Amino acid sequence: MRVLTPATSSDARSPRAGDIDHQMMQHAIMLAHQAAERDEVPVGAVVYRGDQIISEGFNLRECDSDPTAHAEVIAVRAAAKRLGEWRLTDCTLAVTLEPCPMCAGALVNARLGRLVYGASDPKAGAVRTLYTLCNDSRLNHSVEVVGGVCAYECGRLLKDFFKQKRAQRQAARRK
Amino acid sequence: MRVLTPATSSDARSPRAGDIDHQMMQHAIMLAHQAAERDEVPVGAVVYRGDQIISEGFNLRECDSDPTAHAEVIAVRAAAKRLGEWRLTDCTLAVTLEPCPMCAGALVNARLGRLVYGASDPKAGAVRTLYTLCNDSRLNHSVEVVGGVCAYECGRLLKDFFKQKRAQRQAARRK
Repeated sequence: MRVLTPATSSDARSPRAGDIDHQMMQHAIMLAHQAAERDEVPVGAVVYRGDQIISEGFNLRECDSDPTAHAEVIAVRAAAKRLGEWRLTDCTLAVTLEPCPMCAGALVNARLGRLVYGASDPKAGAVRTLYTLCNDSRLNHSVEVVGGVCAYECGRLLKDFFKQKRAQRQAARRK
Repeated sequence: MRVLTPATSSDARSPRAGDIDHQMMQHAIMLAHQAAERDEVPVGAVVYRGDQIISEGFNLRECDSDPTAHAEVIAVRAAAKRLGEWRLTDCTLAVTLEPCPMCAGALVNARLGRLVYGASDPKAGAVRTLYTLCNDSRLNHSVEVVGGVCAYECGRLLKDFFKQKRAQRQAARRK
């Protein structure tokens, strides 16, 4: 008996992560650690073209008092500035967490070529979880998406951060 | 016979635009003209609290080579910077065009209190047209929305801009 299996990330027709994508995600994870060191939610992002890093970013919402200072927006703005061009059609962005509506919208507005993300975001994920903003045919651009790259490591980073935060709050209450 | 009429913008239960909102929209329209003078798509935005303007913005995507430089994002970032606080819970933003997914997401991320917008955007409107991002109970904040304020004037500004652009392109082709 032949058993039909659903398409998975190893489906040859699906976009897949290459070695460069994994290397860039490791770089994004390193950037997420830099956010955590500043007591920011640890999310990091890298924009690259081929094997060349164009720009980097990590979450700085609290430090900069800026609600738009998510890793992706910072990295996209820096890439556009560096290239002198707001269209990032031949670039890939790797980010440790599935982008929120603002960031997914920014990637569409930037005409980003590819998005590689790590952990899914059940609360605000706007690429596959709550919305599919990067692949809405009504909008004027669609981004190739590869999700779940180094997902465990990216998710662990966030879980550890929030666990530590809860412990700090409980310790403060006990005082 | 009693005739039930559907709720309209004059429904007392619906959020409504006050005099201040109309004044601020006129200010946003003036800012949109400043964008047009720089050959940018004419969209303007103002953040205010009571009758006090906190910040302003107009579209600068081309001038700044920045895909995130929409009027709303510029105004929100400037307001947060001025107030030293990324939460804009007690602020209203007036913008001449219905926000796109990026901007609607930014308003949710900024915990904006109220949004007042002018013309609807059939191509990318993410507040009422394609999405209702500002009022999605799955996200961690909901924004009070008043749409259609000075809508004709706001829409006219955009139509005139694109009409002029088309005429310029046709003239260039004839040369």
